[in-house]
Amino acid sequence: MKIIDRIKKGQEEGRPLFSFEYFSPKTAQGMVNLHDRIERMCYLGPEFIDITWGAGGSRPAATLEVVSNAQKVYGVETCMHLICTNNPTDKIDKALSEARACGNQNILALRGDPPHGQSEWTACEGGLNYAADLVRYIRKTHGDYFGIGVAGYPEKHPESATMEEDLKFLKEKVDAGADFIVTQLFFDVPKFLDWVRQCREAGIHCPIIPGVMPIQAYASFKKNIVGVSVPQWILDGIEPIKNDDQAIRAFGVEVGIKMTLELIEGGVCGIHYYTFNLERSTRLILEGAGLVNKTDYIKKNMPWRSSFDEKRKEESVRPIFWSNRAKSYISRTDAWDEFPNGRWGDSRSPAYGDLDRYGVYLKYTSDEAIQHWGSPSALQDICRLFVKYCTGETLTLPWSDQALALESGTIKDRLIELNSAGYLTINSQPAVNGAKSDDKIFGWGPKGGYVYQKAYLEFFVSPETLEKLKQRMSKFPNFTYNAMNKAGDLHTNTNGSKPNAVTWGVFPGREVVQPTIVELSSFDAWKDEAFALWEQWSRCYPQQSKPRELLNELGQTWYLVNIVNNDYHEKEGIFEIFKEDVIAVQQQQQADAQAEAAVAAKLQDLAISASGDVAPQVQAMAVAEAVKA
Amino acid sequence: MKIIDRIKKGQEEGRPLFSFEYFSPKTAQGMVNLHDRIERMCYLGPEFIDITWGAGGSRPAATLEVVSNAQKVYGVETCMHLICTNNPTDKIDKALSEARACGNQNILALRGDPPHGQSEWTACEGGLNYAADLVRYIRKTHGDYFGIGVAGYPEKHPESATMEEDLKFLKEKVDAGADFIVTQLFFDVPKFLDWVRQCREAGIHCPIIPGVMPIQAYASFKKNIVGVSVPQWILDGIEPIKNDDQAIRAFGVEVGIKMTLELIEGGVCGIHYYTFNLERSTRLILEGAGLVNKTDYIKKNMPWRSSFDEKRKEESVRPIFWSNRAKSYISRTDAWDEFPNGRWGDSRSPAYGDLDRYGVYLKYTSDEAIQHWGSPSALQDICRLFVKYCTGETLTLPWSDQALALESGTIKDRLIELNSAGYLTINSQPAVNGAKSDDKIFGWGPKGGYVYQKAYLEFFVSPETLEKLKQRMSKFPNFTYNAMNKAGDLHTNTNGSKPNAVTWGVFPGREVVQPTIVELSSFDAWKDEAFALWEQWSRCYPQQSKPRELLNELGQTWYLVNIVNNDYHEKEGIFEIFKEDVIAVQQQQQADAQAEAAVAAKLQDLAISASGDVAPQVQAMAVAEAVKA
Repeated sequence: MKIIDRIKKGQEEGRPLFSFEYFSPKTAQGMVNLHDRIERMCYLGPEFIDITWGAGGSRPAATLEVVSNAQKVYGVETCMHLICTNNPTDKIDKALSEARACGNQNILALRGDPPHGQSEWTACEGGLNYAADLVRYIRKTHGDYFGIGVAGYPEKHPESATMEEDLKFLKEKVDAGADFIVTQLFFDVPKFLDWVRQCREAGIHCPIIPGVMPIQAYASFKKNIVGVSVPQWILDGIEPIKNDDQAIRAFGVEVGIKMTLELIEGGVCGIHYYTFNLERSTRLILEGAGLVNKTDYIKKNMPWRSSFDEKRKEESVRPIFWSNRAKSYISRTDAWDEFPNGRWGDSRSPAYGDLDRYGVYLKYTSDEAIQHWGSPSALQDICRLFVKYCTGETLTLPWSDQALALESGTIKDRLIELNSAGYLTINSQPAVNGAKSDDKIFGWGPKGGYVYQKAYLEFFVSPETLEKLKQRMSKFPNFTYNAMNKAGDLHTNTNGSKPNAVTWGVFPGREVVQPTIVELSSFDAWKDEAFALWEQWSRCYPQQSKPRELLNELGQTWYLVNIVNNDYHEKEGIFEIFKEDVIAVQQQQQADAQAEAAVAAKLQDLAISASGDVAPQVQAMAVAEAVKA
Repeated sequence: MKIIDRIKKGQEEGRPLFSFEYFSPKTAQGMVNLHDRIERMCYLGPEFIDITWGAGGSRPAATLEVVSNAQKVYGVETCMHLICTNNPTDKIDKALSEARACGNQNILALRGDPPHGQSEWTACEGGLNYAADLVRYIRKTHGDYFGIGVAGYPEKHPESATMEEDLKFLKEKVDAGADFIVTQLFFDVPKFLDWVRQCREAGIHCPIIPGVMPIQAYASFKKNIVGVSVPQWILDGIEPIKNDDQAIRAFGVEVGIKMTLELIEGGVCGIHYYTFNLERSTRLILEGAGLVNKTDYIKKNMPWRSSFDEKRKEESVRPIFWSNRAKSYISRTDAWDEFPNGRWGDSRSPAYGDLDRYGVYLKYTSDEAIQHWGSPSALQDICRLFVKYCTGETLTLPWSDQALALESGTIKDRLIELNSAGYLTINSQPAVNGAKSDDKIFGWGPKGGYVYQKAYLEFFVSPETLEKLKQRMSKFPNFTYNAMNKAGDLHTNTNGSKPNAVTWGVFPGREVVQPTIVELSSFDAWKDEAFALWEQWSRCYPQQSKPRELLNELGQTWYLVNIVNNDYHEKEGIFEIFKEDVIAVQQQQQADAQAEAAVAAKLQDLAISASGDVAPQVQAMAVAEAVKA
C-alpha cells in the first residue's frame, strides 16, 4: 500500500500517524539486532518505517535485506531510501525491481550526500543529477506503481541560496511525481509551521510529514544542529546536563513529547521519528504524547504478523509451530506457489524447504550463547534455564528469539511449574473462549468480532515421561497430541493428518478466519528444525565437554510433544494432566527445604555444644546425619 | 457406503440398526408425498431405506427418482430393489449405471413376482432366471462397487419343496456374491430365530436382517399372512377389533414393539420395517421399543442434510437461502464441477442453473393451494396466513415445503409479531453462542464440539417499509443486510460479495466448519426463485381475480430482505430494529379492540332503550358514533 493512501486514511479517521526511520546496519550482528528492534517497535504501530540507503550506497544489499524482512516477516509498510550518489541507473533499476519483488511500494527519492571524500556533490557516470530526476526516472520506469516521497528542508537546504529557490526545487520534485514530503529534522515548531504555510503558497499541496529527532546524546545533538535553529529553552535545558547521558535522554524525551504535541496541535498529518536505530526514546515520546498506550499493543490483522509479500497476500493460515521463529517459516515456505487461504485443506501436503537451505541458526555466537544460557551440566540446569525464560530473567531460548509472548504470560506460573517438573516448554497458548477482537492481549482482526483459542502446549520430554503421559491421556478425551523424536518415531492419538484449527476469529460479514493450525505433516517438518537447534546449541560448547554431551543426548533421545485441549471452554484444563508431576516436584522441594533446615539446625547445635570451631569433618558428619533423618 | 459396512459399524458399537422399505409410487402426487414422508422419517435415523422396483418393473424411472432424491437431497443411504422380471440385461445395465450416478451403492437383488397376468415365473427375452444369476451379473459387471442384499424366507419360498432346498437356494445367492439377507415378513419370532440357526448350520454366515410389517389394517393383514404362521395371541387379539381401523393400528404397534424387543433380545443386527409408505405405525413402534426418543432428532452431520451424491461428498458450505427448498438448491447446482469445501471462497462466482431448467413449482395444485392458503384479497389476509404458518395452523408456504423448523420455533413469538406488522418472513434462525454439538435443537457434527449461529431473518417488505428500515440500520452497527426487488435493485450495507458465515462449528481435532453462509451473488440467484414463487402462487387464482392481482403486485414491487446480526452474543437483538413497528401494531390492535368494545356497549345501550328490535339504520349510526368516540 502506498504511504499517501495511508496518510489519506489517517486523515479521514482523524488520527495522526507516526513512522520510524532506521539506518541500514553495517555489520551482520547490527543487522540481527535491527531486525529484533524493528519487530519490537512494530508493536507500537508505526504507519510505515523507512530505511536509509546503505552506508552511502556502498551496501545496497543491506538496505534491501531490511526492506524485505520488514515487509515479509514483520508485515510493516516500508519506504526505501534511494539516492543518486554513486548509483548509476542500472543499479537503480535493480534496486527498484528487487524492492518490488518483496512487496515494497514506497521510495524516498533523494540526491544523497556528496560521494565519500568529496565536499561537493557530483553525479556518477551513468547517474542522475537531482532528486527530481530520480523521481521522474522512477515514474518513467515504473509508472504509478511506487509511492514516492521527497525530502523537505524547513530551514532550506544548505546549498540553496534563498528559501524561494529552495521551495522552487521542492516544487519541482513534487511536480515530477512525488506524492509526499518528509522533512529534515528541526526543533523550532512555529518556524516549521510557517514553512509549511510558505510551501502551500508556493503551490506545494501534497502532505508534509515533519521529521523529529529524539535527542539521545549531547555530542550527536551538537553535530546535528548545524544550520538548525534551536529554541532557547532547549539550549538552556541541555547545557547544564551535558555530561549526564541519562539526563540528556530524559530531556530528549521531554523535548520530543512537547514537539509532538505542538505539531499535532498545528495540524500535521503525522510525524516521522529519526530513531537512529534506538528504541527507548522514541517509545517514551510516543507514550508521553499519548500516541500509544503503555499496555496497548497495536491492532493485529492476524494472531501472527501478516507478510506484505505480494505472493503471500492471501495467506491466512499457518501452523502454530513456527510462532516463535516466523522468519524461518517465511523462508522455508518461500517456494510455495500459493498460500493457504481460509483453511489448510486436507489435500495440501506442504513441502517445506530444506533445513540446509535455510540454515537453522541460533541468534547468538557461541560466546554469547554461553553467556546467555550458561553451561548446563545436568538436566536440572536446563530446567532452571527454561524456568528463567518463563520468569523473564532470560530473554531468549534457542527455540525463541523473543521474550515470552504477552499471552503466554497469563499462564506463566503454570509454565514455570511444568519446566521445573522436566517438561521443557517451547511454545504455548492459553484457551480463549470468545474474547473481543479488540482485546488488549488476545485480540486481532477487524473490530466487532470475537476471537478464540484452543489451549496449546509444546515441549520436550524424556521417553519415560512420554510413556507416563500417554497412559494418562485416556482420562482426557478432549486432548489430542502428537509426539516425535529426532528419528521420527511417532506417537499420536489423532487419526491421520487432518489439521486442527487452534486459533480462529468470527467477524461481522465474514467467513470464519482460522489462522493457526496444528497439523501432523507440518509438525514433522518442524521437529527436524527443533531437534537441529539442540545440536546447534550443543556445538557452542567444546567437544567432549559436559554441556555438549548433555545437550546432544537430549536432542538425540527426547521427544518433542504437542498437546491441544480441544475444549476451549476449559480455561486451564490443559495443565490437569501434569498435576501429579507438579505436586511431586513441589513435595520434593519441600522435603529438600526441610532437610536443609534440619542440617542448619544440627550445625547450630554442634556449634553451641563445641563452643568453638567446628572441624570440617564434624560438619560433614552432621550433614550426613541430618539428611538421613 | 455399503450397508454391510454400516451393519459392521453398528455391531461394533453394540447398536441395533433399523431401516425402512418404501414402494415406488404410481402417481406424481404419490411421489411428492413420498418425498415428504421420506424426509420426515429420515429424522428418525434409519440406517438405510430401500425402494421397491417400480410397479412390477413398469416404472423403473420412478424407483430411480426416489433413490436419487433420497441420496442427493435427504442424504440417506439407499438400497435399490432390482428384479429379473421383465428386466432384460440392457435395462439392468442402465438401472445400475443410473443408480451409481446418484451415489447409490446398494442393490437388493430379487427374482421378482411372475410377470403380470401369469401365475408361473418365466424369464423375459434377454433376461436372467434367478436372483443368484442377478447377483452374479452385478458382480460381473460392477465388481465390488455395490453392496448386494438378497431375500430370505424364514418360512421358505412357496415354490421351494422343502426348507433344505430353500436354504440351498439362499446359500447359492450368498455364494454368488451377496453380502446380507433381508427376510420376508413373519410374525413368529422364535421360529425366525430357529431359521437363522438353520441358515448358520447350512453355511450361510452373512448378516440376516428380519423384515417386520406393522399391521395397519385387517384386510391387508389377512392378505399378507398367507403361508405365514401367526402366533395365536396375535390372532386372538386382532379378531375382536377387526372392524375398528384405529384399534387395529394400535394393536399393530403393540405387536411391532413386542416383536422388535424379542428380535433384539434374540441378537439380530437390525430390523427392516415394511412401512407400506406409511409413517405413523413405524414411528410409534420405534419409539415404543426405545430405538428413538420422542424428542430425539437424529445426529446431523451438518445443519443441513448432506447429499450422498459422489460428486458432492466434499461439499460443506451452502447459502442459507435455500434452507427451506433444499431440492431446488441441489438441482440448480447440479452442474457444478466441484462443491465448496471448508469455505465459500472469494473467487467462487456460482453459476446457478436456470429457473426454467429446474422449473420452480409449488408443492400444490391450484385447488390445493387455494384450500391451504385461502384467497387473500388484502395484505392483511397474507399477513394472517404467514402468522398461521408460524403458529403451525398452516404447515406450508409457497417458500417452505415443510412446517416451521424446530429451531425457528424458539423465536416463534417474535416471528408472529413481525408478520403481523407486515414483514413477511420466509427464513430465519436464532443466534446461538456455542451450544454443545449434541444439543437437541441446535446440535450437529461430531460430538465434543460447539456450534454457533448468527441470528438471521429473511422477509418480504414494501418499498416504504424498506426505507424506514434502512434509516434505522445506522443504529445497529452489528447488522448487515441485503435487499433486492424483482427487478434486481439492490440496497445493502455490505461492501461487495464477501460471504458471511452464519452457522459454524468447532470440533476436536478439526478445522472450523462453516456450513451456512449469506452471500450476495447467491442471494441474487435466490431472489429470482423467491419472486417467481409469488407469480406461481398468483396463477393459482383466476385471471383478474383479486388474489391474483394482489399477489402479482406484491411480487412485482416488494423487496426481499435478509438481515444478519453479526453479534451472536445477542440472543434476540435482531428483533430490536422492528420494535417500533411491533409496538405500533399492538397499539392499533388495542385501539381496535377498544373501539369494538365501545360499539358493543353502544349497541347494548340502544337495545335496552329501544326495548325492541333495533333497525339496521340505527345500528349503523351507533357504530359510526362509537368509532368516532
